[in-house]
Amino acid sequence: MVQQSVEPVLAAGSAKTPRTARGEKTMRKILNAALAEFGERGFSESSIVSITSRAKVALGTFYTYFDSKEALFAALVEDMSAQVREEVAPALSEGADTLDAERRALAAYLRFAATHKEVYRIIDESEFVAPEAYRRHYETVADRIASRLETGACKGEVRGLTALERDVLAWAAMGMNVFLGLRFSVWGKEDAEEVAAIANRILRAGLEP
Amino acid sequence: MVQQSVEPVLAAGSAKTPRTARGEKTMRKILNAALAEFGERGFSESSIVSITSRAKVALGTFYTYFDSKEALFAALVEDMSAQVREEVAPALSEGADTLDAERRALAAYLRFAATHKEVYRIIDESEFVAPEAYRRHYETVADRIASRLETGACKGEVRGLTALERDVLAWAAMGMNVFLGLRFSVWGKEDAEEVAAIANRILRAGLEP
Repeated sequence: MVQQSVEPVLAAGSAKTPRTARGEKTMRKILNAALAEFGERGFSESSIVSITSRAKVALGTFYTYFDSKEALFAALVEDMSAQVREEVAPALSEGADTLDAERRALAAYLRFAATHKEVYRIIDESEFVAPEAYRRHYETVADRIASRLETGACKGEVRGLTALERDVLAWAAMGMNVFLGLRFSVWGKEDAEEVAAIANRILRAGLEP
Repeated sequence: MVQQSVEPVLAAGSAKTPRTARGEKTMRKILNAALAEFGERGFSESSIVSITSRAKVALGTFYTYFDSKEALFAALVEDMSAQVREEVAPALSEGADTLDAERRALAAYLRFAATHKEVYRIIDESEFVAPEAYRRHYETVADRIASRLETGACKGEVRGLTALERDVLAWAAMGMNVFLGLRFSVWGKEDAEEVAAIANRILRAGLEP
């Protein structure tokens, strides 16, 4: 279930580019170990020594890829962000129409959150540890929703929206999804399909042409 | 604009009850100083010494009311939570119907967030510093929305909802509100009335009988 490519991390500039495929593999091992360590202990209680030990790489190797614990945390947020995107992509492409695709994407996200509860802790702590990565994560997600609404409007599956309406509704939809994940996947357990269907009915009623 | 009563803080059990009106005033001074200090510096960089100095009370006085910096932080979350509630209460009572009241409440919340940006930092950091207060804050807000929806359904202003629908929609509405505040009151600036009207149209379409 762990994202294999390190490209999203490199694109964000929070890590140094590995020169070989083996180097990419090592960076992936460090990111996976960081997810486990930061997810369990939080940023301040985590150490680079403990992360490299979990990853079974030498301490010096860490600095080939990351400048600091903060840089690793920022990279991990990019990595999580990409992993969530990858996880919901198939659901998005299977929708009968734009709004049905949003329903499927929310259900996929809720299932992902239920089995990756540490994602919330990582993203939420990034507000304090890596504020730029935190903001970029949410701006990117909202932009993607906004552009799907725009495409939906072109196809006549979503009513015409002004630029402000599109932005407001993208942030509103993202906020719904984040809090539904917190409540029904992380804190409690509820059928993802059912929760997504209930929330989606509201979106559909408000966004149908 | 700062909440005067310390009752919500005492009800949550994160502070010791002052025995006199003067004691209540002192506790209020400490809470106000804590808001400024934690809001500017975050939890780990803030100190009790600096908070009591801002509040102009003796260091020993602090311990008459709070056991620790963590307890003060938890109390501050309860205080902020009550302040938000107090801020939106008038708007809620002015609505033409249940859904119009939600629109007015969101607009009031967006205005409050624009002038109290530190509230986001405090509530968000409580996930790590005072996790019980964090959870209680959101559960309380969602419960209040759910019971307004229930009352609305009794009045015939909201369609009939199952218990799960009511919970899902309350958390969805809260998530919308929180993220709209982050994007349009804290990070950017947009007319609160307009943002609330756009978001409310979705709720109305999905919740009208």
